[in-house]
Amino acid sequence: MYTYIRDGAEIYRQSFATIRAESDLTAFDEDLSQVVVRMIHASGQVDLTGDVRASAGLVTAARTALEAGAPILCDANMVASGVTRKRLPADNEVLCLLGDPRTPDLAVELDTTRTAAAVELWRPMLEGAVVAIGNAPTALFALLELVDAGGPRPAAVIGAPVGFIGAAESCEALADRTDLEYLTVLGRRGGSAITAAALNALASKVE
Amino acid sequence: MYTYIRDGAEIYRQSFATIRAESDLTAFDEDLSQVVVRMIHASGQVDLTGDVRASAGLVTAARTALEAGAPILCDANMVASGVTRKRLPADNEVLCLLGDPRTPDLAVELDTTRTAAAVELWRPMLEGAVVAIGNAPTALFALLELVDAGGPRPAAVIGAPVGFIGAAESCEALADRTDLEYLTVLGRRGGSAITAAALNALASKVE
Repeated sequence: MYTYIRDGAEIYRQSFATIRAESDLTAFDEDLSQVVVRMIHASGQVDLTGDVRASAGLVTAARTALEAGAPILCDANMVASGVTRKRLPADNEVLCLLGDPRTPDLAVELDTTRTAAAVELWRPMLEGAVVAIGNAPTALFALLELVDAGGPRPAAVIGAPVGFIGAAESCEALADRTDLEYLTVLGRRGGSAITAAALNALASKVE
Repeated sequence: MYTYIRDGAEIYRQSFATIRAESDLTAFDEDLSQVVVRMIHASGQVDLTGDVRASAGLVTAARTALEAGAPILCDANMVASGVTRKRLPADNEVLCLLGDPRTPDLAVELDTTRTAAAVELWRPMLEGAVVAIGNAPTALFALLELVDAGGPRPAAVIGAPVGFIGAAESCEALADRTDLEYLTVLGRRGGSAITAAALNALASKVE
């Protein structure tokens, strides 16, 4: 037999206490701190704080939209899979269109990745939606281009693609926006778990 | 318009080239290096190499089992969601039983977490299976206890729970085993993306 804590609620309590004791959350207000704590929890790394950037109105914008029933548009099935449905305030729809039958042909037509092409399919639901991009830099770039071209505007964008080609650049581009409410992780780190954790924290204040 | 690479295959090629240029893979043979490269890709961190441990026969054991049609047993839906079905050599079944209707009652009965209780439900499929645990330390501990109690034995265990309570201890416990073929990430890092990436690399040699 191994010795370990078997009580799920106690594991959460001690996890969040450890994170708050070890991480520097001074750059964030209490609402945003709660979100960042969950992102740290998903990554196992307290130094994630140094790379997190958010617009001043992010938490309010995302919460207001979700409470009003906004859909959640995800770039990857793993992100959608990580959204805890019972935390959603309005039984919000959670969508990933990467597997949509129109996506492969659209990617060829637009000469881009399938993940970026799937963003084009968000158009009918994008106005006022909450976007959660945790995988593909090309999806985040495509979203910014779509907005710049006068397309529909999401209420909030969680943009934390991971990786070595374009991830850092796409997050930097998002953090440079003054016209969008955003949450991002600068640099190469990010990913579906961090992104879903942020969304789950924004969806409900329950720790 | 932003300037970025829009060709998915080229993004993969440059990503893996960057990882191989920047990471120290000398501790791993070529087969295992291919797996570790994908784990780094999923985490955005080349220094993950320092924490990766695997038994000598891991790659062969996992590949042989998957080619023979072994099921893949996952502790979290995000891990299952991250498994690329078209990479699987035998249309292998991918299962997560966290949402099974028996799981909540079993957790109460066994006085443990739901994720650990779900491991008990693996018993009929566990002999010779490939296990992918990327979220819950309690699931990994429960698996090791089940094996120690004379239960069925998986062909290979990818065990990379993430977090602050029990994650490091459970990965250490796995790395100490001489009776199982394993792959783990020591310390707090890990998670569903790294775990699914490892499984995907083991499932197919295609980069």
